Amino acid sequence: MNPLQIAVVGLGRMGKRHVHTLLYRVPRAKVVAVCSTDPQEIKWAQENEEYREFGIAVYSNYDEMLAHRGLQAVWISTSTDVHASQSLAAIAKGVHVLCEKPLSTDLVEAQSVVDAAKQNPSVKVMAGFSRRFDASYRDAGHKIYDQNAIGSPFMVRSNTCDLRDETGFFVRYATRNGGIFVDCAIHDIDLSLWYLGSPVPKACWAAGTLQHHPELKELSDVDNAVGIVEFWGGKIAYFYCSRTQAHGHDVCTEITGTHGKVMVNVIPKQNNVVLADKLGIRHEVQPEYWQRFEDAFALEANEFMEAILKDKDVPVKLETGIKVMKIGQALQHALLSGEVVRFNESGERLN
Amino acid sequence: MNPLQIAVVGLGRMGKRHVHTLLYRVPRAKVVAVCSTDPQEIKWAQENEEYREFGIAVYSNYDEMLAHRGLQAVWISTSTDVHASQSLAAIAKGVHVLCEKPLSTDLVEAQSVVDAAKQNPSVKVMAGFSRRFDASYRDAGHKIYDQNAIGSPFMVRSNTCDLRDETGFFVRYATRNGGIFVDCAIHDIDLSLWYLGSPVPKACWAAGTLQHHPELKELSDVDNAVGIVEFWGGKIAYFYCSRTQAHGHDVCTEITGTHGKVMVNVIPKQNNVVLADKLGIRHEVQPEYWQRFEDAFALEANEFMEAILKDKDVPVKLETGIKVMKIGQALQHALLSGEVVRFNESGERLN
Amino acid sequence: MNPLQIAVVGLGRMGKRHVHTLLYRVPRAKVVAVCSTDPQEIKWAQENEEYREFGIAVYSNYDEMLAHRGLQAVWISTSTDVHASQSLAAIAKGVHVLCEKPLSTDLVEAQSVVDAAKQNPSVKVMAGFSRRFDASYRDAGHKIYDQNAIGSPFMVRSNTCDLRDETGFFVRYATRNGGIFVDCAIHDIDLSLWYLGSPVPKACWAAGTLQHHPELKELSDVDNAVGIVEFWGGKIAYFYCSRTQAHGHDVCTEITGTHGKVMVNVIPKQNNVVLADKLGIRHEVQPEYWQRFEDAFALEANEFMEAILKDKDVPVKLETGIKVMKIGQALQHALLSGEVVRFNESGERLN
Amino acid sequence: MNPLQIAVVGLGRMGKRHVHTLLYRVPRAKVVAVCSTDPQEIKWAQENEEYREFGIAVYSNYDEMLAHRGLQAVWISTSTDVHASQSLAAIAKGVHVLCEKPLSTDLVEAQSVVDAAKQNPSVKVMAGFSRRFDASYRDAGHKIYDQNAIGSPFMVRSNTCDLRDETGFFVRYATRNGGIFVDCAIHDIDLSLWYLGSPVPKACWAAGTLQHHPELKELSDVDNAVGIVEFWGGKIAYFYCSRTQAHGHDVCTEITGTHGKVMVNVIPKQNNVVLADKLGIRHEVQPEYWQRFEDAFALEANEFMEAILKDKDVPVKLETGIKVMKIGQALQHALLSGEVVRFNESGERLN
Repeated sequence: MNPLQIAVVGLGRMGKRHVHTLLYRVPRAKVVAVCSTDPQEIKWAQENEEYREFGIAVYSNYDEMLAHRGLQAVWISTSTDVHASQSLAAIAKGVHVLCEKPLSTDLVEAQSVVDAAKQNPSVKVMAGFSRRFDASYRDAGHKIYDQNAIGSPFMVRSNTCDLRDETGFFVRYATRNGGIFVDCAIHDIDLSLWYLGSPVPKACWAAGTLQHHPELKELSDVDNAVGIVEFWGGKIAYFYCSRTQAHGHDVCTEITGTHGKVMVNVIPKQNNVVLADKLGIRHEVQPEYWQRFEDAFALEANEFMEAILKDKDVPVKLETGIKVMKIGQALQHALLSGEVVRFNESGERLN
Repeated sequence: MNPLQIAVVGLGRMGKRHVHTLLYRVPRAKVVAVCSTDPQEIKWAQENEEYREFGIAVYSNYDEMLAHRGLQAVWISTSTDVHASQSLAAIAKGVHVLCEKPLSTDLVEAQSVVDAAKQNPSVKVMAGFSRRFDASYRDAGHKIYDQNAIGSPFMVRSNTCDLRDETGFFVRYATRNGGIFVDCAIHDIDLSLWYLGSPVPKACWAAGTLQHHPELKELSDVDNAVGIVEFWGGKIAYFYCSRTQAHGHDVCTEITGTHGKVMVNVIPKQNNVVLADKLGIRHEVQPEYWQRFEDAFALEANEFMEAILKDKDVPVKLETGIKVMKIGQALQHALLSGEVVRFNESGERLN
Repeated sequence: MNPLQIAVVGLGRMGKRHVHTLLYRVPRAKVVAVCSTDPQEIKWAQENEEYREFGIAVYSNYDEMLAHRGLQAVWISTSTDVHASQSLAAIAKGVHVLCEKPLSTDLVEAQSVVDAAKQNPSVKVMAGFSRRFDASYRDAGHKIYDQNAIGSPFMVRSNTCDLRDETGFFVRYATRNGGIFVDCAIHDIDLSLWYLGSPVPKACWAAGTLQHHPELKELSDVDNAVGIVEFWGGKIAYFYCSRTQAHGHDVCTEITGTHGKVMVNVIPKQNNVVLADKLGIRHEVQPEYWQRFEDAFALEANEFMEAILKDKDVPVKLETGIKVMKIGQALQHALLSGEVVRFNESGERLN
Repeated sequence: MNPLQIAVVGLGRMGKRHVHTLLYRVPRAKVVAVCSTDPQEIKWAQENEEYREFGIAVYSNYDEMLAHRGLQAVWISTSTDVHASQSLAAIAKGVHVLCEKPLSTDLVEAQSVVDAAKQNPSVKVMAGFSRRFDASYRDAGHKIYDQNAIGSPFMVRSNTCDLRDETGFFVRYATRNGGIFVDCAIHDIDLSLWYLGSPVPKACWAAGTLQHHPELKELSDVDNAVGIVEFWGGKIAYFYCSRTQAHGHDVCTEITGTHGKVMVNVIPKQNNVVLADKLGIRHEVQPEYWQRFEDAFALEANEFMEAILKDKDVPVKLETGIKVMKIGQALQHALLSGEVVRFNESGERLN
């Protein structure tokens, strides 16, 4: 067996976890390199005993890393502004790409990656819509599509609510993320398209508020927001995004159909432990997306490997990201302008 | 002890239940009369053994009933279109009024009842916002206001989702109810005002769909709708109303604050029984508002009696209904027009 | 309508609540008298405004109370040692009796009440197995017997776990209650007989511990105990009784059958409110049996009234208490002796 | 990096899963061989594409497999009757051993493995008490021991209830498993020792029933059983074991202390999905131990590797198994004899 030689680009919170996933959960991949432009991250990686044990080279230059002998794939987990250029450079070299969502907050740039991928069909390019690989979301899809458990689905409620970050990390990162509906709701929008059968947006509106991070006002953003997307054909999705939850990472989705409702993670739980004491009965909640979706990342990576090794289509189409991004940006526009954003029946935005 | 002599007007589903509540749960009230204009309901009441046992007179004419010797109070549970006129007639006679919400779908008419009540301060007039008397909603209020359990509340999600009615009853009744946001969301709007500290609406938008009752299209209504209300001061409420749930009467409310979230009835349950079998682990859900709010109706009636007997203010101000109705009508307008409805900082509607 | 004239005997925690239930929930009963031998209770009752309002006479002598003009029924909620004598006195006067369980901790004495009741068939005598009137336990029975939801039931787990009482009330009361399995598990034993189809005991064993109340050692009792009852025919029940729970009144029952399991109140809840904050997600638990079974007491009283007014059998047979008590005493003996207590196939105890 | 070369012995349900765990979750191990004496299993392994891909040799003879060049460790998942002999053979060759519990149903034989391990301290020998590696059980331990969340623990309830097996597999296997309390409750006994602080047993009793598998009668076993273990020092554990649950693999543990209770998996769930439909609200349950404990097996294997590679103590002491087994056999004896089994204060069995 020759495992696929892969590099992880970006060694922030997420990049480190992707290295871990590849080492511990993806036997057909071999991490040969990591890359970061951050001196602290580079130093951390160079001194990392486990990286040495597994023979992982550390690069400070992306192009040099791409030239690593035998490199076959990259997992891009840098900041969003370089996702597209790094993807394009890898595609140009024939290196397979698994890129964190979104490809870009600029739709033209994102489309350029989609186009490049189309022109290089032997290169596998996938955007990391990790929730598509979560066992519970898959079971929800199975119940809806294979078991007809809820009749015809017509309404999705989906939340992405993060634990309040008191370290300042989130606010620093906020300058480049495209706004709360682009950064936070993108998975929820993706899920609503999945479960509602890829409907075309008709109109959307949103409202937001600043409760903990007034400094976001300068960035034209909010820390809590709700939005509604009406689709052509009588389907509706609505979202709540929050940066400021007290209890943990609370990400839930409900899909209502003509004959039932599927709920995913409506009461989030850290594990199977419940404590009864003077305060009543309680359980803890995962602090971050990682505890909730660690298994999903492993499955995502394994399925990406399989697509490469068996030359199959990647499990999530690259175009999906574009459609999702269009809706996210419309919601963000509605949030900031106070206006309804409307689309024609082809999904083209009218304002 | 001289119990207060009370009559129940209207003997539909709700009126019958109010008689039951008064007989079984309100020892300081004595039901002396009921009234209906529906021949079937009149016949049913005349033949009702329990009504005879408790000496309840049956009237087919509201004015005659008002003239019942010794009558001190009425509980009005007729259809909405006669709420106001019946309330006014009772007030004019010095008879205390507990009137089902809303006072009217016409704001001018509703205001006339409020005005009449003001001019007759010795007559107690209350609109039946029954959820205000539910132990769980009160506990939520207690946690928010007395225990400061969630910091400053800024976001309310509230649902009123009815079990699908396959008898046609709901659709027949739909012609007179003012639309889904007026009929269905009125309690949710009321709760959002309660928990958010009586904020002033700024803008709202809504979207709806017809999934089971296409005949509602003629009535300019839908059977499922979501709406967002943005308030001045950075507070937000959003609602989901449905006539077509498969699993039961699903009414939940979440209040998010700066330091926590209070959830009421997010997973509805019929009772404490859970069944584990080949299908997994399951519990049943209340089929109707009655099973969910039976205790609240009893407390409402008892507190209304106490306000009369001890000459105290009624526990829910009559004006509340007007404010709630304005928002309900704005959401309904947004739903039908597709436009954002805006308010000025005094809460006056701008379009 | 002539409501039934009833008196409540004993004005401890439970007696007061029974008066409340009768006033507020039982329209066919009229509380005409209460009785206590405790000077503080008598004073409290004499000064009670509500008792005056409803015209309730206060007696300090049980026989005088029995002679109250027009008295038709008594609800006995005194301490266990006088249950039997008070019941017998009432029966002798032709007064109907609802007596708190158990009739006596002495089986011969308890049997004397059963015998007296048999000899006076026009007098209704019922022991207060209140859980038989709880909506959830009834639904469990309905699922098992009417819906065949779990096949053939063969195993019952049932707990009665009280919130730790730091007032000393419980320990003072402990001298007369017959021990933890008689006082605490009696309802659980009753439920196991109900759900297992009245099986005959074969053997039982128990173990206990003293964790908070070492003073119980002198009374030959413990504050936490578990016991197993094996029945003839392959059925089994097991129980956990506790006086020292930190989180509230935790009373649950599971019935396992050949094709499923019914669970009642496995996760106890105070109401529908859930709080999410830094500690995670939590809810409160009822502090006492009253909050859990208030509705059951109301139904019990109403059904007892109905048995009297319509001359029907009382809903729980008086003999049930004897059978339950025999098992409770056997478990208590096993607990104290460390020996297995065995029964023959007729249910007669062999040691 | 030189991964540790390991073989898996036994290719039944569990052995196959251990191979999977090692391939996908344990990067420091390399599966070099598997071994089975079952012709079907051997054929299956020889034809397995993944085994070929990863270069796994297939043996039909254990001794030949032990001679595999470079072999450093074995994971023994054969039937219990050969656990001890295979462990001893491996130890004799200096090969590290991870052996499924129990080492043997014969205590003398089990002790011989413990002794051999002691005499060969450079060889790591561990029994597979997989629940010790489960995140929820560890969190329970953390709450009890590190956070003092429940005060002093004194009572454990623990269940191992398997989904009813309609394939006949379980009954075939039952001849060699030592009885329901040895096979099924062994983990529960282990957990009770862990959470109660290694108490010494004082007495135990048990009762069982045959509901689905009358053929077990010949094997002196039952398909459902409950047992109580009283420990010296006022601590108690009680267990329910079942082979015949309708709803899934239901394994739960509750630890009650002087100031609270920790519950693990009291309401088992397959995943985060809940379905609401005409039957109410429901979720599915894991069908087998595998879905519940897959992560625990991965952690167990990784920690075993770490013990070897860093020459640390294995995380679960081998002696633990002996102590657990003694209690399991005592419960089984009580079950079959109907007698209480007693121990002296040193834990020596008295009957």
